Amino acid sequence: MSEKIIYLNGAFVPESEAKVSVLDSGFNAGDGVYDVTRTFAHRPFRLRDHTKRLFRSLRYTRIDCGLSLDEMERATLEVLERNKAILAADEEVAIWQVVSRGPRSSRGNHATGKATVAIYCISIGFEEFARDYLDGVKLVIPSTRRIPPQCLEPKAKINNKMNHNMAIFEARQVDPHAIPLMLDLDGNISESNAHNFFLVLDGKLCTPSSKNVLDGITKQALYELAANLEIEVVEGDFTPYDAYNCDEAFLASTSPTILPVQSINGVKPIEEVPGPITKRLIQGWNKLVGLDIVEQALGHIDGADGQRLLTEWRRRSMT
Amino acid sequence: MSEKIIYLNGAFVPESEAKVSVLDSGFNAGDGVYDVTRTFAHRPFRLRDHTKRLFRSLRYTRIDCGLSLDEMERATLEVLERNKAILAADEEVAIWQVVSRGPRSSRGNHATGKATVAIYCISIGFEEFARDYLDGVKLVIPSTRRIPPQCLEPKAKINNKMNHNMAIFEARQVDPHAIPLMLDLDGNISESNAHNFFLVLDGKLCTPSSKNVLDGITKQALYELAANLEIEVVEGDFTPYDAYNCDEAFLASTSPTILPVQSINGVKPIEEVPGPITKRLIQGWNKLVGLDIVEQALGHIDGADGQRLLTEWRRRSMT
Amino acid sequence: MSEKIIYLNGAFVPESEAKVSVLDSGFNAGDGVYDVTRTFAHRPFRLRDHTKRLFRSLRYTRIDCGLSLDEMERATLEVLERNKAILAADEEVAIWQVVSRGPRSSRGNHATGKATVAIYCISIGFEEFARDYLDGVKLVIPSTRRIPPQCLEPKAKINNKMNHNMAIFEARQVDPHAIPLMLDLDGNISESNAHNFFLVLDGKLCTPSSKNVLDGITKQALYELAANLEIEVVEGDFTPYDAYNCDEAFLASTSPTILPVQSINGVKPIEEVPGPITKRLIQGWNKLVGLDIVEQALGHIDGADGQRLLTEWRRRSMT
Amino acid sequence: MSEKIIYLNGAFVPESEAKVSVLDSGFNAGDGVYDVTRTFAHRPFRLRDHTKRLFRSLRYTRIDCGLSLDEMERATLEVLERNKAILAADEEVAIWQVVSRGPRSSRGNHATGKATVAIYCISIGFEEFARDYLDGVKLVIPSTRRIPPQCLEPKAKINNKMNHNMAIFEARQVDPHAIPLMLDLDGNISESNAHNFFLVLDGKLCTPSSKNVLDGITKQALYELAANLEIEVVEGDFTPYDAYNCDEAFLASTSPTILPVQSINGVKPIEEVPGPITKRLIQGWNKLVGLDIVEQALGHIDGADGQRLLTEWRRRSMT
Amino acid sequence: MSEKIIYLNGAFVPESEAKVSVLDSGFNAGDGVYDVTRTFAHRPFRLRDHTKRLFRSLRYTRIDCGLSLDEMERATLEVLERNKAILAADEEVAIWQVVSRGPRSSRGNHATGKATVAIYCISIGFEEFARDYLDGVKLVIPSTRRIPPQCLEPKAKINNKMNHNMAIFEARQVDPHAIPLMLDLDGNISESNAHNFFLVLDGKLCTPSSKNVLDGITKQALYELAANLEIEVVEGDFTPYDAYNCDEAFLASTSPTILPVQSINGVKPIEEVPGPITKRLIQGWNKLVGLDIVEQALGHIDGADGQRLLTEWRRRSMT
Amino acid sequence: MSEKIIYLNGAFVPESEAKVSVLDSGFNAGDGVYDVTRTFAHRPFRLRDHTKRLFRSLRYTRIDCGLSLDEMERATLEVLERNKAILAADEEVAIWQVVSRGPRSSRGNHATGKATVAIYCISIGFEEFARDYLDGVKLVIPSTRRIPPQCLEPKAKINNKMNHNMAIFEARQVDPHAIPLMLDLDGNISESNAHNFFLVLDGKLCTPSSKNVLDGITKQALYELAANLEIEVVEGDFTPYDAYNCDEAFLASTSPTILPVQSINGVKPIEEVPGPITKRLIQGWNKLVGLDIVEQALGHIDGADGQRLLTEWRRRSMT
Repeated sequence: MSEKIIYLNGAFVPESEAKVSVLDSGFNAGDGVYDVTRTFAHRPFRLRDHTKRLFRSLRYTRIDCGLSLDEMERATLEVLERNKAILAADEEVAIWQVVSRGPRSSRGNHATGKATVAIYCISIGFEEFARDYLDGVKLVIPSTRRIPPQCLEPKAKINNKMNHNMAIFEARQVDPHAIPLMLDLDGNISESNAHNFFLVLDGKLCTPSSKNVLDGITKQALYELAANLEIEVVEGDFTPYDAYNCDEAFLASTSPTILPVQSINGVKPIEEVPGPITKRLIQGWNKLVGLDIVEQALGHIDGADGQRLLTEWRRRSMT
Repeated sequence: MSEKIIYLNGAFVPESEAKVSVLDSGFNAGDGVYDVTRTFAHRPFRLRDHTKRLFRSLRYTRIDCGLSLDEMERATLEVLERNKAILAADEEVAIWQVVSRGPRSSRGNHATGKATVAIYCISIGFEEFARDYLDGVKLVIPSTRRIPPQCLEPKAKINNKMNHNMAIFEARQVDPHAIPLMLDLDGNISESNAHNFFLVLDGKLCTPSSKNVLDGITKQALYELAANLEIEVVEGDFTPYDAYNCDEAFLASTSPTILPVQSINGVKPIEEVPGPITKRLIQGWNKLVGLDIVEQALGHIDGADGQRLLTEWRRRSMT
Repeated sequence: MSEKIIYLNGAFVPESEAKVSVLDSGFNAGDGVYDVTRTFAHRPFRLRDHTKRLFRSLRYTRIDCGLSLDEMERATLEVLERNKAILAADEEVAIWQVVSRGPRSSRGNHATGKATVAIYCISIGFEEFARDYLDGVKLVIPSTRRIPPQCLEPKAKINNKMNHNMAIFEARQVDPHAIPLMLDLDGNISESNAHNFFLVLDGKLCTPSSKNVLDGITKQALYELAANLEIEVVEGDFTPYDAYNCDEAFLASTSPTILPVQSINGVKPIEEVPGPITKRLIQGWNKLVGLDIVEQALGHIDGADGQRLLTEWRRRSMT
Repeated sequence: MSEKIIYLNGAFVPESEAKVSVLDSGFNAGDGVYDVTRTFAHRPFRLRDHTKRLFRSLRYTRIDCGLSLDEMERATLEVLERNKAILAADEEVAIWQVVSRGPRSSRGNHATGKATVAIYCISIGFEEFARDYLDGVKLVIPSTRRIPPQCLEPKAKINNKMNHNMAIFEARQVDPHAIPLMLDLDGNISESNAHNFFLVLDGKLCTPSSKNVLDGITKQALYELAANLEIEVVEGDFTPYDAYNCDEAFLASTSPTILPVQSINGVKPIEEVPGPITKRLIQGWNKLVGLDIVEQALGHIDGADGQRLLTEWRRRSMT
Repeated sequence: MSEKIIYLNGAFVPESEAKVSVLDSGFNAGDGVYDVTRTFAHRPFRLRDHTKRLFRSLRYTRIDCGLSLDEMERATLEVLERNKAILAADEEVAIWQVVSRGPRSSRGNHATGKATVAIYCISIGFEEFARDYLDGVKLVIPSTRRIPPQCLEPKAKINNKMNHNMAIFEARQVDPHAIPLMLDLDGNISESNAHNFFLVLDGKLCTPSSKNVLDGITKQALYELAANLEIEVVEGDFTPYDAYNCDEAFLASTSPTILPVQSINGVKPIEEVPGPITKRLIQGWNKLVGLDIVEQALGHIDGADGQRLLTEWRRRSMT
Repeated sequence: MSEKIIYLNGAFVPESEAKVSVLDSGFNAGDGVYDVTRTFAHRPFRLRDHTKRLFRSLRYTRIDCGLSLDEMERATLEVLERNKAILAADEEVAIWQVVSRGPRSSRGNHATGKATVAIYCISIGFEEFARDYLDGVKLVIPSTRRIPPQCLEPKAKINNKMNHNMAIFEARQVDPHAIPLMLDLDGNISESNAHNFFLVLDGKLCTPSSKNVLDGITKQALYELAANLEIEVVEGDFTPYDAYNCDEAFLASTSPTILPVQSINGVKPIEEVPGPITKRLIQGWNKLVGLDIVEQALGHIDGADGQRLLTEWRRRSMT
């Protein structure tokens, strides 16, 4: 039996039964928060940090999820545990923790006072981004600006993704696989729709100031890796000019972890990705999680193509 | 049998069965839009205008709901029709049309490509706001600013209500029944979490410029009423100073239609609400919809209290 | 002999001899202003208005061109006159008036105190935009914002086009023929790199407030045409949402005059361009200048293709 | 023979023949970039750094100059070499590298696809600023704000100087020799029309954050000097209040290198310039370039006046 | 006896005795509001309007002055009455109404709860601005921006004049008699330190939108005059470019009423002031108040100079 | 005799005689600056630093107080000395130095050219804030934004407190004892109406960047204390989200020195105040000034209540 098991409000149910009312304010108002942790070799990576960030988002939005931090973590681990049986050996999952303020009444539209909590596993679609480790992603800077903190806090992970979605539509005009690199109201680079952005300038690992962006767990892990590798990290205000003229660039996020950037608005900072510092960080990451994330991803590309890419990756890893 | 009937993706189902997957991007990303039409004497008011606005929101967010404007309108009317049997004579409903981009796959987190469409009736909780016609609502200006159009368009009705919710939390610190009056990034008054704002200055009916606010159907109807009553309407940039020093003020929205304002940040522009122009507009509205909206609302307050308020309302209506 | 004649600092010289020093601050600092007037049937259109705007730009930038308004106008007319002999019957020109602050010294880099004035005719390349009358132009909203008046006045026509050029590069990522539609710092639509933008909303002819944009002579002429045709004109703050949801849209500028818009960021406001109000304005324009501007442009597309397009245009003109 | 030799598009020509068409988009649209390197004792200072910055400007503006970095550097050196014969012993030059997108066609106004490259030497007019080493320059804060990066990048050196020029006109109302000190849109000090700004606060060398300003090569050299002299450097947001209340202040740019500031909007931070830290930096600079930059400049003031100033400078240098 | 009589907290005292404690929050915190009405022929002009504006300022700042509107007006009139005996025939006064929140305690620094109210007459110093009617005032645009409404409302007349004072210091660098013309945060013209600004564009009387500026009583009177004279009034966003290129300009305020503008940042919009529309408005004003305001002012310039100016004024009035 | 002695313009007078004219521009225009130093055990704390900041404020506002820094300091010490006799043993004072530009003439409203200088002692009302050391203060974020430096410098201490007062009115809607925590125009936390704000994040002592706030002397002393205690200090941009999710928070200002924060907009970062780092800083402060500031304050709460609070404080101090 291949259906996944989902935690929903205290119960563990098959995916097809994990449903919420259309009166849930998560559905009709985006009135919720979430977090996403991924596994490496079926082990969750920094679940505690993700859960703590979830609780910061809850505190900010004044949602009481009805669970303590420990309870939330345990429920999350149990979801993973219950789904392990149906995971293929080369499969990994992104574990979503989603909390909404809960259903509203059909008379008066009142909050009924109890949050909806769902925890579920999404199998990572490696084939979607595996080639990006070798090709690099194309970034396009959209006209839509990231919502500023005085309206809604970018550090919180809120179920209000339309601002990011508007950016995606613009980027995809250029290329269906392009990713938007959003600016803040002052024109500084903030983040993509779902990744933190890093650039290398004069040998330093640079990334937008934390005021503009989601406080990425992957980003924090990269800071630690960089410290170990004695690469200086600089947070600051960076502009498209910096991106066009950097030495290398990459995106960082939970599922693909580190994705090299091919071009920003068509300008290529480097001929062959990943650049040397990006490569060292990927190698450091591999050690950290005990597997080669690129080989794992390329393993999901079938046939000769997959083999060719793997060979190419190994060649580049050497240099 | 008292359960309401809900339209969900082409079917009409009982409320308890109207459920969507937790993988629906409406639930986990607020990736949808909506609109709300209310009934007066069980007849929907300007359903066409609401549906057209829904379609503008859909166009803006690039969601294809799979229905034509006519089909959406017909489905909405049928939902109302199917619920009429269980509506009390003095009951009215707000008919919600909610459309999300639809469920995402549990492998790869892909959009499955089909929007989720839900249409349902929420019975209006008149007792919640009936007293406000006589007491006026307390407005509190929160620190949270309305999201600007370069991030997400305020004219569109998007399931991303957290910006409005943050404003509510601030207002409710002052009084649990207070309503937030939000400013835009420049400090101009925009809207409440769910109403357009009107103020009377020198006999003119003033309201924030359309660039800052939801393009309210009630607001449009008030423009027509004002034209009939030869009251000049002015759209512009108004600040808290204008609100403190206006002659009268009110909120306009679908369910309560016109709610007099008692105070803004504790400053009372008028001793007894509704002010004369507000009163004329309420009376005009009553003619438009064929019933007295205040009497209807007060009718839901039980006992002597309800009777006393009704008498008081009639006294004020006379003057 | 086919070389054009150019006015340069009081003399009329062949194009190949119309040269300025690389020390001219027009060349190495963009330290100049300009204006462009086009001909219809070899007659300049509103040259006086263009020259007056040139003089406003000069006044703003404190450049003394050394000529009175009348002298500038006479020189411009003489340039046209001297080039008429080599103009084909179906040719039209854009007459450029360019004034820089003049050459700087090779010791000390001083202004030498005498402006450089060049006036020349560029033959209009009709074939570049002729198809746009039937296809509509694709507009793409770039991330680059229009420079605000507190930095440099958009109403003045200054030889500092890099802000516009940055917008062009972004638009051309989507389509080499796409045109950028720029926003101002607040996210309101301002202008393209070289055209004013118009949209039709509820039967009204809408265009961005004059504070954001070049004060187009074509725009002014359209205001007059609209008044004659009893079409209401509204200046205001418009956003991408308005553009996506308008009934029709077009660009207005000196050379193509009126170019229908096919789509904005891929969203099509109308199926077949030009929309009805756009069509009435084109027809009005044709009367104003005494020729059919679309037929003139299509006349420069050779062969069967040109013929087919002309037929199609006549069909659409009828309806 | 006294005419200078100029590199123009691959050729070395006399200054009087170094001309570009009025159809060059550098001339009629400011469509180009530039950089300026100066000599000390006829040797160029950090030409490589200047040329790299030129190439960053080219990359940002998508201009292909047709030369590699090495070729550009070699051509620049050859320009200097060819002009050395006519340079006086006490003369120095500023070598300009100017690149425009190139000429446009006289039919259709197309780019012809080949950039215009000019390299030339401007003899430094020492007498213009020599007295400023002893008197200090008067800074005036103009109302015109520096163009922000979301419109056009201040780090790039673009031939669009009108924003700076508008600031100059304002400053010169106060004093024809005054220099504008521009603010950014947030009211932070950015830069003059042509210099970076430094101030000393509590013994630290402070300068506006790099996000607001041209990335000066002289500024970079000063960072190194300060490090050697164990003076702490702070980049940050500084306001007029900081400038009024600093201990000393100076401008830094290619030609005069370091110019002490007498007053900002009439407020004098120090009685006698240069202040102690400014003096140490000038002395450090002198060592770096192997000559006394102030004595060199004062050497261009003739007669008794020049002698008196030199004596005064030596007195101040002692203390 | 020549000492003026001042109303202070209910009493009428000689000027030398009209004192407040240094503990008054008006003195040590600027915690108050004020208004100023002038006399024409010893009769106050629109005292009611000024007093109503004072009460709007009080309401905004939550100060209870302890007097009703009528009482305040009566006290003001009595101050004027008591000072009439010592007014020369050609003298006029500006009557100041100043209200602070009152003294604070010397233990705990508490508000003692009673406002301080002072009303006094300042004799108008006509000789200071009389020449300006013929010479025009020089306006200088300072870098200091007008405080925006989201910080403090420009429509209210608050005893917090340091923002205006900072602008004055900048203007006076250019000329000790120059007046600052302030911009708002967006770079639109707002007001001088003490006057509203008007400009004439294409025969229309233009003035900055009310959102940016004090709601001048003189301005309101000019709107009425313009209506009578069939001059169209336009409120909007105007920039320095508009001011440089206008046909005529003037300042409007209580004491001098209408002051023609000679230049803005050194750019002269007109050769001889006042321009034709300014002149018509001055003439209309003279009728309104029953005396020639320019002749009255010039009457305070002694000797031949005064006579000469008067003759010149009469000459200009004719044309 | 219990009346305090006040320095006023060179003389030492009893409080009841320390008065200024209502024509003083300090009173009718807020045209002045001030500073406040407190005593610990009747000894002024860092009077020199406060006086230097006063002189920076004077320099910024171009007021010449007529005294040198030393003279001002001596006069301040003498004021304290002259009041010591009437100070109770457990009393402390805040010594105010207030300087206005001085009186204006009653004809022409001219500055008479001599500043008004007042120096006086306000006894600290410990009972007002003593309980806050144990309860923590409630912070409320108002909608009013702090005035930005391009309008008026927040680093200067200017007698223009209405912006702060507007914030107080908003906070007091929630609770009469609540204190406003203001944001700047970008939505970053700046300061309260009278305190700097500190928060603890991950063991680091964080506080808003100096660009947004008064440069507090108490803040500077805390930086030194933190350095001694090896607590890292971080200046940066912090938002309400950071405040809601911090580990502890406190206010810092001259009189109460360090006040723990109970909640921000109702969100409590910690259960029992003061948090551990706040406690260490209070203890460090106590050593610095030679007395226990909390015990001193609680000593002013009479009776059993005072005793109980003191016991509780001692209990908490232990842990």
